[in-house]
Amino acid sequence: MARGHFYVSSLALGTLGSLCLLFVIYWVQHWRGGLAWDNSSRMFNWHPVLMVAGMVVVYGAASLVYRLPQSWVGPKLPWKVLHAALHLAAFTLAVLGLVAVFRFHQHNQIAHLYSLHSWLGIAAVTLFAGQWLLGFSVFLLPWASQGLRSLLKPAHVFFGATILTLSMASVLSGINEKLFFSLKNVTAPYSSLPPEARFANLTGMLVAAFVVLVLYVLLVSSWKRPEPGLLTDRQPLLHEAQ
Amino acid sequence: MARGHFYVSSLALGTLGSLCLLFVIYWVQHWRGGLAWDNSSRMFNWHPVLMVAGMVVVYGAASLVYRLPQSWVGPKLPWKVLHAALHLAAFTLAVLGLVAVFRFHQHNQIAHLYSLHSWLGIAAVTLFAGQWLLGFSVFLLPWASQGLRSLLKPAHVFFGATILTLSMASVLSGINEKLFFSLKNVTAPYSSLPPEARFANLTGMLVAAFVVLVLYVLLVSSWKRPEPGLLTDRQPLLHEAQ
Repeated sequence: MARGHFYVSSLALGTLGSLCLLFVIYWVQHWRGGLAWDNSSRMFNWHPVLMVAGMVVVYGAASLVYRLPQSWVGPKLPWKVLHAALHLAAFTLAVLGLVAVFRFHQHNQIAHLYSLHSWLGIAAVTLFAGQWLLGFSVFLLPWASQGLRSLLKPAHVFFGATILTLSMASVLSGINEKLFFSLKNVTAPYSSLPPEARFANLTGMLVAAFVVLVLYVLLVSSWKRPEPGLLTDRQPLLHEAQ
Repeated sequence: MARGHFYVSSLALGTLGSLCLLFVIYWVQHWRGGLAWDNSSRMFNWHPVLMVAGMVVVYGAASLVYRLPQSWVGPKLPWKVLHAALHLAAFTLAVLGLVAVFRFHQHNQIAHLYSLHSWLGIAAVTLFAGQWLLGFSVFLLPWASQGLRSLLKPAHVFFGATILTLSMASVLSGINEKLFFSLKNVTAPYSSLPPEARFANLTGMLVAAFVVLVLYVLLVSSWKRPEPGLLTDRQPLLHEAQ
């Protein structure tokens, strides 16, 4: 039962995550002139695509590595490496997404980092960098004691969820802001809800739904990797998986 | 130790929550012409004030009622009534906040509910209404069995946190949007970060910090109300509190 429920959630996550990506790409391709790495507004378009890919979709997938029942048996190290590698991929996508918007601003003499959207985004990416480095140092390198790891793990999990929540707020305020910038045409302003507006709003709602589902799967205690020596209600699911 | 840590968090919550409210009031008073219930832009100003008060500050306080060690001993009913009453107060503030913006739009012939900000906000308030009614029916009215309550409680807690997260995203995108609307002066646009922009951005960051802290206190398991018959690491804190 728990296992079936887990796989239904995973299927929903995969579907929602793919839709988030497809929708944001379709938005910029169909209505905003497409993608190019040339300092123009088409370079700007990489910003929403890469931030949604990095800070939401790949980040969400990376967070959930230890929820796979396959990760509960056998050595933990390969799963730790996968968790760190996926997060590094997410971080790389996010940095490229920042490069896209900074270069676009620079080339078009637009000020950097003034909006609340940008403050939130920078806060999320900075926390992510700190979280990754601390996680790598404490949980992956071999020097830290089990005691130190157990002490820091709840904070690591909590900050992981916090960064995703801040990323969501940043992505949603960014889509909202971009639509106010772009849909200024007097015949079809944002307020008349032209097809682009409805589509991009829906993209934002999909991002919110994906993040909420990731947080749900993260929090369901029976899907957490059982700690050695701890007998809990998780065991039945582990046994099913063996 | 756990008890001291809890009270430090409560102090931080009280301080942050008060600052969120004071900052949003100061923002509209000092830069946006103040508050009035007269369909003008001063009526609009009630919208951010009431939404931050209702969907963030009072909502956050209401969510944490069962984290008070005082609520762990003796009958649960008075605490349930307090939890429901505070949430009803939060909901009332939010509805008044919506009335303010709808009336302002109506009077100034501005379209309703087109931005992603408004979609998020309506989703949060609608979920909140459903959550309150379901919570009232199942957990406060006497008909539901203990089994049904135990079954629905994790979903109730999860949706409670989800609604707060969506409210945060809605408030932050709303502040961001309002600053783009208001700071259009060529000599001091939003992009030049005039004092109002810095102040309102900071207000948004305070809202994010408050919500993250509420979620933290909600999730720390040793601060949860012990369930009857369940012996956990919560007990020492309960004993300290007696």
